[in-house]
Amino acid sequence: MAEINRQWVVAQASTSAGMCLEPEVFGLHEAPIPEPGPGQILIRNLIFACEPLVHAWVKGVPGRIDPLPVGATIKGHAGGQVVTSQHPGFNVGDLVHGNLAWADYTLSDGNDVNGVPLSLQVEGFDLSTSMITLGMTGLCAYIGLLDIGSPKPGDMVVVSAAAGGIGNIAGQLAGLAGCEVIGIAGDENKCQRLVSDLGFTAAIDYKSSDVSAELGKLAPGGVNVMFDNVGGQVLDAVLLNLASWGRVVVCGGIGSYDNPQMGVYNHILLAQRNGSMHGFWYSDYQQNFARATQRLGQWLKEGKLKEVVDIAHGFEQVPEASRGIFSGANMGKQLVQIASPVEA
Amino acid sequence: MAEINRQWVVAQASTSAGMCLEPEVFGLHEAPIPEPGPGQILIRNLIFACEPLVHAWVKGVPGRIDPLPVGATIKGHAGGQVVTSQHPGFNVGDLVHGNLAWADYTLSDGNDVNGVPLSLQVEGFDLSTSMITLGMTGLCAYIGLLDIGSPKPGDMVVVSAAAGGIGNIAGQLAGLAGCEVIGIAGDENKCQRLVSDLGFTAAIDYKSSDVSAELGKLAPGGVNVMFDNVGGQVLDAVLLNLASWGRVVVCGGIGSYDNPQMGVYNHILLAQRNGSMHGFWYSDYQQNFARATQRLGQWLKEGKLKEVVDIAHGFEQVPEASRGIFSGANMGKQLVQIASPVEA
Repeated sequence: MAEINRQWVVAQASTSAGMCLEPEVFGLHEAPIPEPGPGQILIRNLIFACEPLVHAWVKGVPGRIDPLPVGATIKGHAGGQVVTSQHPGFNVGDLVHGNLAWADYTLSDGNDVNGVPLSLQVEGFDLSTSMITLGMTGLCAYIGLLDIGSPKPGDMVVVSAAAGGIGNIAGQLAGLAGCEVIGIAGDENKCQRLVSDLGFTAAIDYKSSDVSAELGKLAPGGVNVMFDNVGGQVLDAVLLNLASWGRVVVCGGIGSYDNPQMGVYNHILLAQRNGSMHGFWYSDYQQNFARATQRLGQWLKEGKLKEVVDIAHGFEQVPEASRGIFSGANMGKQLVQIASPVEA
Repeated sequence: MAEINRQWVVAQASTSAGMCLEPEVFGLHEAPIPEPGPGQILIRNLIFACEPLVHAWVKGVPGRIDPLPVGATIKGHAGGQVVTSQHPGFNVGDLVHGNLAWADYTLSDGNDVNGVPLSLQVEGFDLSTSMITLGMTGLCAYIGLLDIGSPKPGDMVVVSAAAGGIGNIAGQLAGLAGCEVIGIAGDENKCQRLVSDLGFTAAIDYKSSDVSAELGKLAPGGVNVMFDNVGGQVLDAVLLNLASWGRVVVCGGIGSYDNPQMGVYNHILLAQRNGSMHGFWYSDYQQNFARATQRLGQWLKEGKLKEVVDIAHGFEQVPEASRGIFSGANMGKQLVQIASPVEA
C-alpha cells in the first residue's frame, strides 16, 4: 500500500482544438494520503477506465461539464476498494466504481463528482466487469444499439470503432439480435479478431480500404443501422450506403474530437433515404439501466457476450493509455490497473 | 395559342459540382406541336414551379432519378390545361399538374414521367394553389414539420430558407401548432415580411447576422424543432442552440447543393443533447397526403394560412427563375406563368 498519494493534476490548460489532451497537460503530484472525516470514505483506486469522455471532464463540455482549473486533480471512471469508512453505507473492503480521482486514493462522501452514488459491483462479477460491460461501456452499447437503433433480425448493422470498448459490445449485441454486422476498425489484426473471436460477419480496415466501396460489396442492400463512434469520413461512407429508412445512432465522434475540421458532408442523403440520426447521452437513460444490466449479465454468464479488455499496468501509464484510445492503440476497453483488491 | 412548341432541352451536360445548373446547360429548341394518338392527351402548359428538385431531374440522383441525356427535353413540376384528348379520363379544358415538359405543350398518356397519374386541381382552388400549397410544396411542409417534426404547443421552432416556398408554409404551420417560430432568411426585407405578414415570432437575416448568437438571444431555452432546407453553416448554428431532445427535420440542403464542400461540423452535439435528425422523401409518405391536403385547404379557406408566390412571366424566364432560387432571389414559391387557362 502506497505511503503517499500520487495524483495526476492539470499542469496547464489544454490548447489543442481536439479532445485528446497534450502530454504536458498532465502533471504528477504527490501528497499525503487523505483522512476521511465523518460521512466520508477513503477509496484505494485499483483500475482506471480510459474513455474519450475523460478528456471532456478536463476540458469541459458547454452546458454539461465545467472544465477543470489548472492544479485540480483529474477525475475519471475508475474502480477501487474502500479502505477506511466513516460512512454508514460503506464497509471496509467494499468494491466501488464511479468518477474517482486519478490518484492512488479518492476521498469521497459516497457520491461521485456528479452526486451519483458510487455503484457497487454487480453480484457474481468482478470489479472490472461491473465497471465496463455492466457499467457505462456496456450500457452505452445496449441503449444505443438496441433501445435507440432498434435493429430487426436480418438487418445489416455497421459499427464504427468496432474494436473499441463500446463498439465491440455493440457489434456483439447486433449479432445476438439476429443481424449481420460489419465492423469498421483501424488495423487488419483487429478486423480479423472481430470476425474470428466476436462473431462479426465482416470487418473493414478503414486505414487501408475505401470504406464506401467495401460496404457496397458487403452490404449491397444497404445499411439498416449504423452505430457510430467516429463521425467524419467514416460516417459519410456509411451514409452513402444507407438503406431506405436507415438509422444512425450517434454514440460518439472520436474522429472529429481531434480534428474539428472533419465535417459530415453527406447528411443530405438522410432526406433521399428517409434516414435518421439519433444522438444519445447515456446518463439521461437511467430508466433503461436495470433491464440492460440484467440482460448483459445474463449474456456474459451464458458465454454469448465476450468481454474484451486491453490492460496496461502502473499508475504512471494512465495519461498515455487515455491518450492512446484516440489513435486506436487498444483492442477492446482500455484499462489501467494500478493495484489489486485485498481479500476481506 | 403558340403555333410552334418551344422547349427547353439539355444543350450540354452540367459540369458544376453543385445542383444549380449553368446557363449553358439550357438550350431553346422549337418543334411542331405534337399530335396526341389513342390514349394520349395534349396539355398546354401554363405555369412552371421552380424547385431545387428540377435540377435533380436533369443531373439525376443516384438510386432515385436517372440523369437526362443531352438533347432531351427537360421536365419539371408544372400545371397546364388539356387542349386535345384521346384519353377517356380527361376532357378538353381540364386543368392538370405533374411532371410536365419544359415546353409550350406536353404530350402525355395521363401519367407524368414517373408513371404517377396527373393530379387534377383540388375543388374550389385555382391551378397554382393546387400545384403549390396543396401540392408538393405544401405537402413537404406539412409532413416534414407536423408529421415528422411533431412540434408541441410552446415549442421553439426554427425554419431555414423561411422565405422560400416550403419554408414559409412550414413556419406558418408551426404558428398554427401553437409554437414560437424563428425564420432564417437571406435579406432584411424578407425577414420583415415573415414577421409582419406571416406570423413568425422573429426572423434572422443570415447574410448580415451571427445566426448562432441571434438564436442564443431569441431562443434562450434552445430550439426544439428545426425544419431545415439549407444544411451547412445554418444547420451548424442551430445545432449549437439545439434544446435537449431537439429534432432536426432534413427537408433539403440548398446551401450544400451548390457548395458540396459545405459540411456539417456540429453533428456530435446530437449526442450531447439527445437530439435527432430526420430526413424524408416526400413521395414515400403518400399515406399522409389526403389528410394533409384536406387540412391545408381548410386553413387556406379560413385565412389561417397565406399563400406566398413570386411570379415571373414568359417562357424564356423558366431557366433563370429556376436558377434564381439557389441565390434566394424569390419570396415564397417561385412560379413562371407562360399562358392563362382558357374558360370552358
